[in-house]
Amino acid sequence: MTSPTPPCAPEDVRRVACVGAGVIGGGWVAHFLARGYDVTAWDPAPDAEPKLRRLVDAAWPALTRLGLAEGACANRLTVAATLQEAVADAQFVQESAPEKLELKRNLLRRLDAAAPAGVVIASSTSGYPMTDMQTEAADPGRLVVGHPFNPPYLIPLVEVVGGERTSAGTVAWASRFYEVAGKSVITMDREVPGFIANRLQEALWREALHMIANGEATVREIDASITEGPGLRWAFMGPMLTFALAGGEGGMAHMLDHFGPSLKSPWTRLEAPELDRKLYDAVVAGCDEAADGRTIADLVAERDRGVIDVLRATGRLPRQRTAGEAAE
Amino acid sequence: MTSPTPPCAPEDVRRVACVGAGVIGGGWVAHFLARGYDVTAWDPAPDAEPKLRRLVDAAWPALTRLGLAEGACANRLTVAATLQEAVADAQFVQESAPEKLELKRNLLRRLDAAAPAGVVIASSTSGYPMTDMQTEAADPGRLVVGHPFNPPYLIPLVEVVGGERTSAGTVAWASRFYEVAGKSVITMDREVPGFIANRLQEALWREALHMIANGEATVREIDASITEGPGLRWAFMGPMLTFALAGGEGGMAHMLDHFGPSLKSPWTRLEAPELDRKLYDAVVAGCDEAADGRTIADLVAERDRGVIDVLRATGRLPRQRTAGEAAE
Repeated sequence: MTSPTPPCAPEDVRRVACVGAGVIGGGWVAHFLARGYDVTAWDPAPDAEPKLRRLVDAAWPALTRLGLAEGACANRLTVAATLQEAVADAQFVQESAPEKLELKRNLLRRLDAAAPAGVVIASSTSGYPMTDMQTEAADPGRLVVGHPFNPPYLIPLVEVVGGERTSAGTVAWASRFYEVAGKSVITMDREVPGFIANRLQEALWREALHMIANGEATVREIDASITEGPGLRWAFMGPMLTFALAGGEGGMAHMLDHFGPSLKSPWTRLEAPELDRKLYDAVVAGCDEAADGRTIADLVAERDRGVIDVLRATGRLPRQRTAGEAAE
Repeated sequence: MTSPTPPCAPEDVRRVACVGAGVIGGGWVAHFLARGYDVTAWDPAPDAEPKLRRLVDAAWPALTRLGLAEGACANRLTVAATLQEAVADAQFVQESAPEKLELKRNLLRRLDAAAPAGVVIASSTSGYPMTDMQTEAADPGRLVVGHPFNPPYLIPLVEVVGGERTSAGTVAWASRFYEVAGKSVITMDREVPGFIANRLQEALWREALHMIANGEATVREIDASITEGPGLRWAFMGPMLTFALAGGEGGMAHMLDHFGPSLKSPWTRLEAPELDRKLYDAVVAGCDEAADGRTIADLVAERDRGVIDVLRATGRLPRQRTAGEAAE
């Protein structure tokens, strides 16, 4: 079966439905309102509407500071009484229900039955593959994952990936729509449990939980170790390129030669992959590609500027003190 | 045996020796110069001096922008011809040799033999416990780990931890010295392989390598998934507190109730710890302590301000576009 074509181009969407209005769904509501869309929301929880309006009100000063789209207004939010009402006129549907597989399956089936033919329906799921969620829908071809980060109204990233029965057109339409709506999109060509960023932050989260469980570090130390350390770089340069700079003028190749052996160290509970020639070459070539003509010296200068900008922006430039001057 | 007392207070140090002048050692040189110290460096590599001077020259504009300490000058660097000459007058020694255990052991033995009695000698090691490195030194009590992040002249974090034979006074002296020298210090009370931040970033790094090895993501996608996603938050709010905000008004407790089950998901190759009552309580209590009286709403507002500041500072405020406006 071929899915019907979406009724409008990604650039022409004006009405968005958000189904599920908790932290993530409500964050999407705030984002779409700020980008100038009409938003209809629905959530079956009895206190959903006041919570949602509080979330939008709390986010609005930040969104105003960020710059609202022309005509954007928190009043362009309608809270619908039923799922059917919420999606009846939608040109795009964002589902953000709790992470329960059966619930997601049934909800996507109902959304597919209620939404106008061809309208793309995206799920905010943090980790379920769409293949497992689209099993009950009459038109699985229009169902796709559009996974945001908290809060969706500020963090640009959305990971887009289809299931086995998602049409290629749906994946392309959704990726383009999110871009038009101001997001930064990674379109994945295969389903990987947890997608990309969640796998990375989940590895870090699990290691942190192990450390707390073992009394090796406190919550505060874990957070400080990131915000005072690698986190400053990761706001603008990813872990791969920043690790490449640890190799000095030799870049990633030198870094792998130098620190490759530490992959055997018990530095986390996560087993390392074998650093064979193929992986070595893929990492070095990937870094060259990501550097995109920038030399190591260029990247170092860029990193230094970025760290200083971030330190300054977040009010953390170190106190200036002369060597030997007595402390306060 | 009791170690001799350091000859001066941390606040009175004026002369620092940096032994090993690669990326990390050279970064320390730049940091100490910028903070107004006299620095003597030594590195046995034949091309060490020109490389070191290039590194300091490259860092200097950033350090100037950051704000130099009074009297700070790149000319206050002396490159010594021998290890003995480098440390003869030092009031603090920072060792940043390659990560090879035997090399570190011997070097620390030689530094201990050459440095004035009582002067604290810190190792930049990324992961060796001081217990394993201090075995050859006549006075192991003054040897301590002071682990920085790249580049040491910009990233505030230093992890300080002693070995079994390190004196408590040395650990306290080193922690205080680094603070006076403008660093942000975490003093650990036990040796954990990889310390804290490295364990966390190593978990992420290993997961990234697995993804590249399996063709699940490219270097560029991995980096973008962090810089466009969680990395924006981690520049100023650590992973624990930001995860707490995913729990909405219920904070970390609600987050653990909601996402706890996903610890069983194959979202990384790292096995999760059992989320038993004790760990649950430790995480929730740790977040409360870290929040330090700030409500969830306060933290959300802080996070939002921070993300916008970071986006603005790094030139990435999303283009403002009206809903439905055609893309470029």
